[in-house]
Amino acid sequence: MSRTLNTTPAADGFRMPAEYAPHAGCWMLWPERPDNWRDDARPAQRAFAAVAGAIAGFEPVTIGVSSRQFELARTQIPAAVRLVELSSNDAWMRDVGPTFVVDGRGGRRGIDWRFNAWGGLDGGLYFPWDEDDLVARKVLEIERADRYRATLVSEGGAIHVDGEGTLLVTEQCVLNRNRNPGLSREQLEAEFRAWLGVEAVIWLGEGVFNDETDGHIDNLACFVRPGEVALTWTDARRDPQFRISRDAWERLHDARDARGRRLKVHKLPMPGPLRMSAREARGVHARDGAKARRAGERLAGSYVNFYIANRGVVVPLLDARTDRGALKRIAALFPGRKVVGVPAREILLGGGNIHCITQQVPAAGESPPP
Amino acid sequence: MSRTLNTTPAADGFRMPAEYAPHAGCWMLWPERPDNWRDDARPAQRAFAAVAGAIAGFEPVTIGVSSRQFELARTQIPAAVRLVELSSNDAWMRDVGPTFVVDGRGGRRGIDWRFNAWGGLDGGLYFPWDEDDLVARKVLEIERADRYRATLVSEGGAIHVDGEGTLLVTEQCVLNRNRNPGLSREQLEAEFRAWLGVEAVIWLGEGVFNDETDGHIDNLACFVRPGEVALTWTDARRDPQFRISRDAWERLHDARDARGRRLKVHKLPMPGPLRMSAREARGVHARDGAKARRAGERLAGSYVNFYIANRGVVVPLLDARTDRGALKRIAALFPGRKVVGVPAREILLGGGNIHCITQQVPAAGESPPP
Repeated sequence: MSRTLNTTPAADGFRMPAEYAPHAGCWMLWPERPDNWRDDARPAQRAFAAVAGAIAGFEPVTIGVSSRQFELARTQIPAAVRLVELSSNDAWMRDVGPTFVVDGRGGRRGIDWRFNAWGGLDGGLYFPWDEDDLVARKVLEIERADRYRATLVSEGGAIHVDGEGTLLVTEQCVLNRNRNPGLSREQLEAEFRAWLGVEAVIWLGEGVFNDETDGHIDNLACFVRPGEVALTWTDARRDPQFRISRDAWERLHDARDARGRRLKVHKLPMPGPLRMSAREARGVHARDGAKARRAGERLAGSYVNFYIANRGVVVPLLDARTDRGALKRIAALFPGRKVVGVPAREILLGGGNIHCITQQVPAAGESPPP
Repeated sequence: MSRTLNTTPAADGFRMPAEYAPHAGCWMLWPERPDNWRDDARPAQRAFAAVAGAIAGFEPVTIGVSSRQFELARTQIPAAVRLVELSSNDAWMRDVGPTFVVDGRGGRRGIDWRFNAWGGLDGGLYFPWDEDDLVARKVLEIERADRYRATLVSEGGAIHVDGEGTLLVTEQCVLNRNRNPGLSREQLEAEFRAWLGVEAVIWLGEGVFNDETDGHIDNLACFVRPGEVALTWTDARRDPQFRISRDAWERLHDARDARGRRLKVHKLPMPGPLRMSAREARGVHARDGAKARRAGERLAGSYVNFYIANRGVVVPLLDARTDRGALKRIAALFPGRKVVGVPAREILLGGGNIHCITQQVPAAGESPPP
């Protein structure tokens, strides 16, 4: 039902719409691996279920789960959420799921990026990742959407688009030798033009400090509408994040988008700094082949890692000292949407946040033609 | 997304439509267990793929497959067929899938029968059957259809309805102590009235000779339209099937359906008799916990085990001496439909046939109100 195409989306008149364009729904996965999620993933499962419930208030949500956990998951997630069997190596639907593209005339297809667990055997986070690499294909089958099998190694969290021709990425991730060695910046830009239907690429430098994805853009900055970007921020000059965010701010300040606009940058003060506690680290069952979790390790917490739903925004709550301010700022950035906070430290402990565990299905034909 | 309801279909105004009512699509499963399907199930997989392809010519088909076989199956099945990950203990979607019910006003729900592998520890065909018993639930999630969890042990192959209030079953199966011990014939009739929305039950005696399902109706007889039944038949008086078919014919001859009609019975001469060859038996990897396959064993081959699709009928080809005649008779029974034969001996070797490996999704709201 899902044909695999040998062309590229741009050649076929398709392009990736922005996350703030209308959605048909949202996909997630169910966390279970005890070598990444403490206490046999039960606290993370509660957090994922709460995220799914919050998003389900705005649009249909489907969660993929292994055969082993199907019945348990069904008791844990809200009735409004659809549950389907879908094996994976972990639970990062943003990165292993398809990136949907539309043609503005009712067509919707998916890009199935090559996936190597954020770096393969050169700094990747676990081995094997064979089930992960099939997730996009399985989602596209269920969605009855045709599939582009990208030649590029990439993840959904490595790319943000404004829906009007502009792509936002980080050099740390996209130029990393553990993704697509041998491709130059110019070649990668050409690839993204072909796959995402974009015209201009804005390169930031590093991602959030100690972000184990090699600095995914979706934890650092995102478009909130065409011409406007939210950026995680700190004014603490001695914090390692300060230099990173200031560099990103300068690059954004100097950039022009695909339409030639200057960008307006909204600073979102970061939580913390947050660290993994000894108790949290003890709850993870360390295992060869998966990243170790150590007490005291700096967590790459960021409020930018939210999910934009139909008429809503679902935001991670990470620090009682800063949560309220973050919600207020994000609400101001999205006047037409209801902003909902969900406690998300348990997701952060596993290496990402709400944006990382979700993948939107854009409404077919809803995006204005380019 | 699939709520589990605590009522019954009849109480909610739902009932099971006949197979010849319009379909939204068809579900199947992918065979793989080497202790039931010879030569690591490769010949059976080819047969299943051919069945799926034939049905896909008439209506959308989805096949459920284990994570292990996903990529292999995708290369084997036609592009028009949707493939979804769905674990099961074997591949009999008729029996482990949901029985759909409709309300004639656009509502469609599913009955999730309790499943015990055709008899549980008392003559059942394999152990365990835990994945099988989750299949209906998983199909209903993907279909976004609400679920009735039946209190009854049953299988889709044990029931045939005419869509106008009549249910056809066999005593051998439905009254078997290994299904619902303690329930009388009258209590079982009441149960089926509640679950299927039928009014009258016609009881045949035994199923096809040596049918390991304990005599499923769907291998012996089926409605071809209201008031008309096809019955597998032999004129060979010494064949053990003779007595069974004659008894069924007499019961059908004496019966009245829910509307008070006498039934017209169409005899479909059986193939064979067919037996498992030594080579076929050798190809099965015997294992404790699964039924042994023995050379020379009589196979319960029957042309009645066809699938009625939208504007089509997909019929098992089982015996070069009788196939053409069977196709001709079935074509005469279904003047508005294209009859397609598919070589099906490999399915028969596993214990069933085309009807057993399929489950229709009726079109919602297409059935006339009762």
